[in-house]
Amino acid sequence: MAEESSNPAPPPADPPADGGEEGAAVSKKAAKKAEAKAKKEAEKARRAAEREAAAGAAGQGGQAEDLAKDNYGKETHETVLSPEAADINLKSIGEEHVGKVVVLRAWIQNVRMQGAKMAFVELREEGSWDIQGVVAASPEGTPVSRQMVKWVGSIHPESFVVVEATVQKPLDPVKSCRVANYELHIFKFFVHAAAPGMLGMTLAAANRPVANFSDEEPSVEKAVEDLNIAAAPGETAGIPAASMLTHLNNIVMHKRAPVQQAIADVRAEVKDLFRSYLKSHGFKEFEPPCLIGAASEGGADVFTLPYFGKEACLAQSPQFYKQIEIAGGRKRVFSIGPVFRAEQSNTPRHMTEFTGLDIEMEIKKDYKEVIFMLEGVLLHIFRGIKERCADEIELIRSVYPSEDFLLPEPGKEVRLTFAEAQKLLREEGPEEYRNVSDDEDMSTPQEKALGALIRKKFHTDFYVIDKFPEGARPFYAKLDPSNPKVTNAIDAFIRGQEVLSGGQRINDPEELKARIRQKGIDPASPGIKEYVHVFEQAGVPSHGGGGIGLDRVVAWLLNLPSVHLAAYYPRTPRRLLP
Amino acid sequence: MAEESSNPAPPPADPPADGGEEGAAVSKKAAKKAEAKAKKEAEKARRAAEREAAAGAAGQGGQAEDLAKDNYGKETHETVLSPEAADINLKSIGEEHVGKVVVLRAWIQNVRMQGAKMAFVELREEGSWDIQGVVAASPEGTPVSRQMVKWVGSIHPESFVVVEATVQKPLDPVKSCRVANYELHIFKFFVHAAAPGMLGMTLAAANRPVANFSDEEPSVEKAVEDLNIAAAPGETAGIPAASMLTHLNNIVMHKRAPVQQAIADVRAEVKDLFRSYLKSHGFKEFEPPCLIGAASEGGADVFTLPYFGKEACLAQSPQFYKQIEIAGGRKRVFSIGPVFRAEQSNTPRHMTEFTGLDIEMEIKKDYKEVIFMLEGVLLHIFRGIKERCADEIELIRSVYPSEDFLLPEPGKEVRLTFAEAQKLLREEGPEEYRNVSDDEDMSTPQEKALGALIRKKFHTDFYVIDKFPEGARPFYAKLDPSNPKVTNAIDAFIRGQEVLSGGQRINDPEELKARIRQKGIDPASPGIKEYVHVFEQAGVPSHGGGGIGLDRVVAWLLNLPSVHLAAYYPRTPRRLLP
Repeated sequence: MAEESSNPAPPPADPPADGGEEGAAVSKKAAKKAEAKAKKEAEKARRAAEREAAAGAAGQGGQAEDLAKDNYGKETHETVLSPEAADINLKSIGEEHVGKVVVLRAWIQNVRMQGAKMAFVELREEGSWDIQGVVAASPEGTPVSRQMVKWVGSIHPESFVVVEATVQKPLDPVKSCRVANYELHIFKFFVHAAAPGMLGMTLAAANRPVANFSDEEPSVEKAVEDLNIAAAPGETAGIPAASMLTHLNNIVMHKRAPVQQAIADVRAEVKDLFRSYLKSHGFKEFEPPCLIGAASEGGADVFTLPYFGKEACLAQSPQFYKQIEIAGGRKRVFSIGPVFRAEQSNTPRHMTEFTGLDIEMEIKKDYKEVIFMLEGVLLHIFRGIKERCADEIELIRSVYPSEDFLLPEPGKEVRLTFAEAQKLLREEGPEEYRNVSDDEDMSTPQEKALGALIRKKFHTDFYVIDKFPEGARPFYAKLDPSNPKVTNAIDAFIRGQEVLSGGQRINDPEELKARIRQKGIDPASPGIKEYVHVFEQAGVPSHGGGGIGLDRVVAWLLNLPSVHLAAYYPRTPRRLLP
Repeated sequence: MAEESSNPAPPPADPPADGGEEGAAVSKKAAKKAEAKAKKEAEKARRAAEREAAAGAAGQGGQAEDLAKDNYGKETHETVLSPEAADINLKSIGEEHVGKVVVLRAWIQNVRMQGAKMAFVELREEGSWDIQGVVAASPEGTPVSRQMVKWVGSIHPESFVVVEATVQKPLDPVKSCRVANYELHIFKFFVHAAAPGMLGMTLAAANRPVANFSDEEPSVEKAVEDLNIAAAPGETAGIPAASMLTHLNNIVMHKRAPVQQAIADVRAEVKDLFRSYLKSHGFKEFEPPCLIGAASEGGADVFTLPYFGKEACLAQSPQFYKQIEIAGGRKRVFSIGPVFRAEQSNTPRHMTEFTGLDIEMEIKKDYKEVIFMLEGVLLHIFRGIKERCADEIELIRSVYPSEDFLLPEPGKEVRLTFAEAQKLLREEGPEEYRNVSDDEDMSTPQEKALGALIRKKFHTDFYVIDKFPEGARPFYAKLDPSNPKVTNAIDAFIRGQEVLSGGQRINDPEELKARIRQKGIDPASPGIKEYVHVFEQAGVPSHGGGGIGLDRVVAWLLNLPSVHLAAYYPRTPRRLLP
């Protein structure tokens, strides 16, 4: 930013790609219509501006002096802004700023020329905050020249700029911007970092629903080189939806889309709600390792890597370690961190790396303490998101529609045993589930059908299934003492999809070894031996807990078509970049 | 916990290993003396109790009925506690509990018989909270029998028990317990989970300073099988310090040691302070991936693994990804997560997996904004830990002594340029540093010498070194525009050891490519190409940030002899277990 001369050098003259508008909370039809119209006008005006700019450049020598020449151009370390101008951010703009001179650093979202003497710009800050700016040629005050207006008209969308302006109230609210009641009358305009003339994906395209999630690229290497395909002229013209592949190959634009910013905000809030609830209930955070000596939950689906002449695994869950924390004298612990599955599953529900929200706690009297805690933290998250992220949810819905997420009234939480859930499916579910079994785990379609049934019957999208059959649970699940065919183990579901698995664990080493043998595993085998040893070292209290899939909670809560949209950097068998 | 009969069955009769006391805040000498004395007495009383218990068991048939037989034994699901007894935790015990009947679930830390009619127990809860319990034979109220007292005398330390008791004020404060002003008069006593008769490492040994950190086991497999060596009789007799190897092979006892509980608490608090400071300054949390397609910071020291027919790497830092977040429209981001280094370094400063606290932010005017933010968050952490963790620091000091951590007064922060630091070393440092160079990075001994100098001269253990020579920094470091021999890059130090590295990054793709070439790297090489592409997609504002090593901050702040003590599950080239 400091190496260039301070003369206002126009950015490259290729026609800027269309930045489009953002489809925040306006009706889709109206938005599309307005957008099409605005685009046409903008394109017309821009072409005119370019013609004039080109003409001006040709005859530069003979032109009148540019009185505004120090007030625009590429920002350098010699760029001078008024010392009295306050930095502003759009989220907190208010009446107190009207008439004041401010400085804003933001992205150019759109530029529209209105004749040769006036340009309208949309400036966007973090998230979906945008404001209209007006650059009008005028000799008064800090002068704005025609040349300056033309130059502004040729700035590429998604360039980062710094402007100095007066805050004004527009005659009518600016419908196309989130900050509708204020506009900026700009008299200094500098490009801090220029965007290319042709974006790989426009903001408008990035903010449309992802067209398909098939990840069928020939190779990761080639996909990166193929970027130009994604930016073919056809793409930018009609603002079609782009594929997930195009989104990820244009990760910067993908992330700038208001819908992705809103999803990221919801995700961060889910983590915060999880953490704050648990901390207020006496839980302590810890960090389980990713590199482990042996597979924690059996050998399938585990990544292995060479490790100084030996072999290491990547943890599939922090199960082993959160139980060590309890054995090691912590009463209640939680962790938030990555877990890994080497599954060759290319579905919208799977990733090879995802984020686990994990809980483990001492049980005082009854394993239901664990159920209530897991249920409690999820309800806290769902209620908190509804309350704190109402704007984000509305914005996300404008791109990915969803029905209101129904929550049970306090005291009316739905908890069914597995057998009760199967009975419900048999008696009231679709024909094909008449013969579901009490001894086998549910399939994904069965789970979804059950979710629909429960929504209809109990008016909730969240519920817990308890007492899973022993065959459907790992060896460490505690059997129900009064019915050893089932376990003290639960799953929790939202919108018919599982987001949590948990329950009571066996804490007695002899009971554990017997159960491991019943499952046909040798208690002395690698990984298992070290696990059993934890309970042999000293007396370990009864305990239980659960693991929540953060990506799934975010995706299903918002009814997104894929967990890949909820992740910051989705990892699939075919995808490690960016 | 439910399979056994409800008759009070005594736990196995092997002599319990000694639980010792905890060396909280008493002087070492006094503690040792008191400990030796208490141990002798306890051992004597215990042997007597065992003899009597054995005699009692032999003549069981002829004994009088045990009036207390329902009030002790192994806890089962038929165990009955008084419904009016309130669950209590030791941290919150107070005057309002005196005379009340309470239930406590805790670990037996120590048992001491006083004749045949009375037993003293130390009960420990999470962390270092312990209280004295008295079990005295008496027919009054809920009866306590001699048999019950004997049985209590034979419980193994580190068993998890549940007791019902009346809270009383002792005649004199109980010096050996953290809860000194209350004691429990116990009349119901159940073992929830029994510890083995011989612990692999006693609590007392676990709470001593680790004797050595050499990780010289023949193999990970064998180390686990060798546990009995660690538990040889010599070990438990004199409470000698154990090696880190013994600690990790007995992870449960290692973690139960009050010193490790306190270190874990400090660590969690550091994370909380980091997060809360940044959130209050507008930062948003995100999660960078661990699995990446190409090494982020060059090919050395990177773990690679087979990934569905291709190769994946484990991230060495979230550098690439936090910059994508800024490019993607976030103004300020942070992350907390694991990073990996495949370094064959067996030192107290290195691990193969550790936790990075990472920050990235837009720069508005000057990269010093980044310095102030990084300095600000570290100072917030250091001040916060002093304030919130005073008890923990005191406890840790009783095991690992440290001098008070000196902090600069607000406004008197020490910031030296690299050249100034070298000058200081040359002019006032030890003889061997007379010829240090301004162009090369400092060695670890040089850094430590500098730390000592700065402590003496400026009375602070925390300082920042700025303007590192360009040769000492990676390609993405922004050169100082006014002196391109140095970078806008900093390190921060505590007690003479680096805990943070950061600075301004290059945000212009052309400048970046030129710099990459200057470093002798091909901008089109894998990993680099994708990095450069981020800045080509759209205009990216100036930005900077830093990475803090959480393990190091905790270790050096507390003056621990190794980062391995600060980690929950230290990973070294030789160690992946537990």
